[in-house]
Amino acid sequence: MKVLITGVDGYSGWPLALHLLARGHEVVGVDNFVTRRRVREVGSWSATPIPSFARRQAAVRSILGKELRFHRGDLERYDFTRRVLAEERPDAIVHLAEQRSAPYSMIDVHHAVATQTGNLTGTLHLLYAMRESCPDAHLVKMGTMGEYGTPNVDIPEGFFEIEYRGRTDRLPFPRQAGSWYHWSKVFDSGDVMFASRIWKLRATDVMQGVIYGIRTPEITDARLLTRFDFDETWGTAINRFIAQAVLGLPITPYGKGEQRRGFIALEDSMQSLRLAIEHPPDAGEYRVWNQFDAAYSVNELAELVARTATELGLHPTIEHPPNPRVEAEAHHYAPMHDHLAAVGYRRSRELPDVMREIFRDLTRYRRRLEARRHVVQPTVRWASGDSRPDLAARRAARPDPSPEPSAGPPIEGSSA
Amino acid sequence: MKVLITGVDGYSGWPLALHLLARGHEVVGVDNFVTRRRVREVGSWSATPIPSFARRQAAVRSILGKELRFHRGDLERYDFTRRVLAEERPDAIVHLAEQRSAPYSMIDVHHAVATQTGNLTGTLHLLYAMRESCPDAHLVKMGTMGEYGTPNVDIPEGFFEIEYRGRTDRLPFPRQAGSWYHWSKVFDSGDVMFASRIWKLRATDVMQGVIYGIRTPEITDARLLTRFDFDETWGTAINRFIAQAVLGLPITPYGKGEQRRGFIALEDSMQSLRLAIEHPPDAGEYRVWNQFDAAYSVNELAELVARTATELGLHPTIEHPPNPRVEAEAHHYAPMHDHLAAVGYRRSRELPDVMREIFRDLTRYRRRLEARRHVVQPTVRWASGDSRPDLAARRAARPDPSPEPSAGPPIEGSSA
Repeated sequence: MKVLITGVDGYSGWPLALHLLARGHEVVGVDNFVTRRRVREVGSWSATPIPSFARRQAAVRSILGKELRFHRGDLERYDFTRRVLAEERPDAIVHLAEQRSAPYSMIDVHHAVATQTGNLTGTLHLLYAMRESCPDAHLVKMGTMGEYGTPNVDIPEGFFEIEYRGRTDRLPFPRQAGSWYHWSKVFDSGDVMFASRIWKLRATDVMQGVIYGIRTPEITDARLLTRFDFDETWGTAINRFIAQAVLGLPITPYGKGEQRRGFIALEDSMQSLRLAIEHPPDAGEYRVWNQFDAAYSVNELAELVARTATELGLHPTIEHPPNPRVEAEAHHYAPMHDHLAAVGYRRSRELPDVMREIFRDLTRYRRRLEARRHVVQPTVRWASGDSRPDLAARRAARPDPSPEPSAGPPIEGSSA
Repeated sequence: MKVLITGVDGYSGWPLALHLLARGHEVVGVDNFVTRRRVREVGSWSATPIPSFARRQAAVRSILGKELRFHRGDLERYDFTRRVLAEERPDAIVHLAEQRSAPYSMIDVHHAVATQTGNLTGTLHLLYAMRESCPDAHLVKMGTMGEYGTPNVDIPEGFFEIEYRGRTDRLPFPRQAGSWYHWSKVFDSGDVMFASRIWKLRATDVMQGVIYGIRTPEITDARLLTRFDFDETWGTAINRFIAQAVLGLPITPYGKGEQRRGFIALEDSMQSLRLAIEHPPDAGEYRVWNQFDAAYSVNELAELVARTATELGLHPTIEHPPNPRVEAEAHHYAPMHDHLAAVGYRRSRELPDVMREIFRDLTRYRRRLEARRHVVQPTVRWASGDSRPDLAARRAARPDPSPEPSAGPPIEGSSA
């Protein structure tokens, strides 16, 4: 099959391209490299060194013996989106090209607006271009389990049958997202559902759990590594906790730490997306898959990271800073996830094993963590409305990145 | 109270300003006149002649003896929104400044994107500016009953208590909108609900039924008239049907015509908005009011228009063109609307009476309808994805607009 991956330069997009190429699919990538710029904007970088895209393509050619074609451009420009779809007419489009950070969206009004309008515009442009050039293609849209929030009832896969005041219907499950970013994904879901209905498009809306891991079987060489973000804005809790343990900083689950979320290994997320691609829905069908395979509380993650760190000879500590987010810190959490099993999904990785693998990689790239150790602790606060001053202060406080770790940690009493 | 009305130059904004001024409230208006431009864009104009805003202000001064202050600008510019709220610090903000036409949003990809990103941006800007300058103000946000779609169960006011798999919760009622425009209002609802939660803002999200009528008691002079759109893009079904009857065109309920919707008279919508303003919610409270007082099917409206036309000596006919929209043409419809009654709402106008009043006004401005008779029939089709060619053809077919009904003061649509 011919698969177009938008956001192919990103954390999931890159290993997905490798995974699909290795299985004989034709892959065409699209990216505008905005994530690289936005990670720099908050003073951070990937723990793993990421080559230029041209070098990434060359590595795919020499290591996998495959051709990864690429269009550089921005989905927010309709002429670009339309031209790419008209030229490529893919069988499936995996849409990963969105601003994906909740804290980034909460920095201030401009980040909120850029996140919501940018994500919506890209999705609308893809839907219109599909309708025009490839109405039979299958859109696999990256959403998030965070769209559902934390209701006090079980969470179905997108829709539920209810009885209300003596009548019944199958309705979209109510969404209660927890950041402007998460709301942007709710909005996308509405638009994709509506376009599927009026234009008979086929779509899988993936309610993605939090992904963990750096490695997939196709990543056989350092030149094929995917990015790994560990800063407070772009890194997930697992990533930040491991980075904290490696750097000798306290591990910091926010608030009570009883927030539970669904998780999935990077390799298994790739498996899931491939299964969605290989089992497309009918024309006009909009389906929702909850894509995770185990739920953990933030405290459980912190303890697992601490245990693994201790095994590796480190001396981790755990602290509970005030929660910078506004969220329930203890709640019911029982989302269903049966659709994946029905198409043959099998979990291939366990969280403790993947954690050890991440520790190994981060130890290898420890100097890159050291050079950005100021970006791990939280500064973006949900209730503040404007976290830019904190970011600016942090950037100013950042040591010159050129003297690498040998310079040692900042001296006590310094403005850092 | 000091009330800021965004979209004060529009169909509801204008009579709301008059209504609140007449009751002793201080009113400050905001508008960027984009609706005037967008109505021109589709080749139409208001059936009622609308003076320039400066003349409208002068009429308020001379006829009502009141001062209507005004800021001209665009809420999509944050510096403007922020400055206005910082200067005015209103007690309540009635946010009407949004693209409000479903067909306009369905014209093509650019109109879809402009509708969704524009409406979202304005709302986000207001929320951030409120948080900064007037966090105790009450946001009265204009939504639409169309956010709910037509589920097979009764429609509560925003939230419902459900039991699902043995557990219970109070959740937002699922939204299933029927156009990009209606989805934009769903998205606003998500953002306003979220901002109320994280910033303890107070908000009333008004699920507005379709408004009908031209007159309110404050409109005692032609210079105080509000706009009345009758074209397929900007006019509601009632408006178009009456315009068709006056012009001797067939009345055209789309499809089967069993689509039911909630309706409310313009005067009663003003009463409702004032009641919301005068009974604000608590800090941090996000409440949803369904604002309509009777439901009618499109066929019932068509028959009522035909009956009224016949009484007035006209010879109306009814035709059922293919439905340009994608919607259920026969469905359950039982939305609740108890919150308004609880704060003292009383219906003051009946649809048949208001219809006669509209017929009188449209007969008076019949020459303005005649000059735009080509804009009443539908050209924007939900399934087509690109209705621009139809619009262009229609504009080309339009007779020369220069022969005006009378010289008079500068009015919307004149080149003065």
